[in-house]
Amino acid sequence: MKKSIAIDMDGVMADIEQYIVDWYNKEAGTTITRDEIQGMEDHGLFPDKELLLKILNTEGFFRNLPVMDGAVEVVKALMEEYEVYVVSAAMEFPLSLFEKKEWLAEHFPFINWKNIIFCGDKSIIDTDYMIDDHIKNLDFCKGKPLMFTAYHNVNLTHHKRINHWNEVSGLLKEFEEAAE
Amino acid sequence: MKKSIAIDMDGVMADIEQYIVDWYNKEAGTTITRDEIQGMEDHGLFPDKELLLKILNTEGFFRNLPVMDGAVEVVKALMEEYEVYVVSAAMEFPLSLFEKKEWLAEHFPFINWKNIIFCGDKSIIDTDYMIDDHIKNLDFCKGKPLMFTAYHNVNLTHHKRINHWNEVSGLLKEFEEAAE
Repeated sequence: MKKSIAIDMDGVMADIEQYIVDWYNKEAGTTITRDEIQGMEDHGLFPDKELLLKILNTEGFFRNLPVMDGAVEVVKALMEEYEVYVVSAAMEFPLSLFEKKEWLAEHFPFINWKNIIFCGDKSIIDTDYMIDDHIKNLDFCKGKPLMFTAYHNVNLTHHKRINHWNEVSGLLKEFEEAAE
Repeated sequence: MKKSIAIDMDGVMADIEQYIVDWYNKEAGTTITRDEIQGMEDHGLFPDKELLLKILNTEGFFRNLPVMDGAVEVVKALMEEYEVYVVSAAMEFPLSLFEKKEWLAEHFPFINWKNIIFCGDKSIIDTDYMIDDHIKNLDFCKGKPLMFTAYHNVNLTHHKRINHWNEVSGLLKEFEEAAE
């Protein structure tokens, strides 16, 4: 049986970082840069919390996210060796549910609907590997965690780090070899 | 730590059986009864498959499902002793995603969004118990399966059966005592 991988959307398959900074600046009239937010906590990021929630609940926000560089090619390649599941914490923003499904259909049409999971927390997800940017998911995951670099985790060192999709296959091979 | 339960929506929390028979009859001009479909396979149920798909993709279909008798009270009571997750195979019908979320907010407002999972297949869901009507989910679930009675499973005997929500607490106690 193929080993399974849970792959997160925002910050992993979807390149949300510059996108949300730009959107926030436009709405708030600020000039926050991507460099400035490196190392910041997820919820300490933007001063106007209400505006942030408004943005995340705006129609089209999740539908128009750019794809992370390399994600399409590498996910497609991984599917030959692994059972790949998309596992996204979409439940907090109900409008995002349909948009995320549409986004996947556009950019990752080769992923079957059976392998897509929209959840709240990820604590009952059981896969051999989990690729995610949030330690709240990685710290407690049942499989082996791989931390995708994001502004909020740049200073953390307790998980194997992925800086770019092209590193994923190598890291998975390392895990496989260590397990043999 | 509380033990966890995954609870299915359609046919378990939501009383879909009479509802879909009525809807189909209205559209097709047939007179299929709930009694007639007992013991039938899930996909052998209605002669016009295309019409069935059209119904399942109709706006409002999932939003207006009636609640299964006893579900609200028992789920609320279970949450005192268990970590309850709603796990619904909603991904096949993208329109249902938002409607199911709204339906839960209306009828089960006490269930936190963190505990809601919309998925395709349920093979990577890991909870101590699973309450579901489909053996495709129960046969391979990682926890202990409880089969909620539905037309398509009335002749099956290989899982503990629930005929009504008021039987659930007793069945869970049986499992707990057997495990001691």
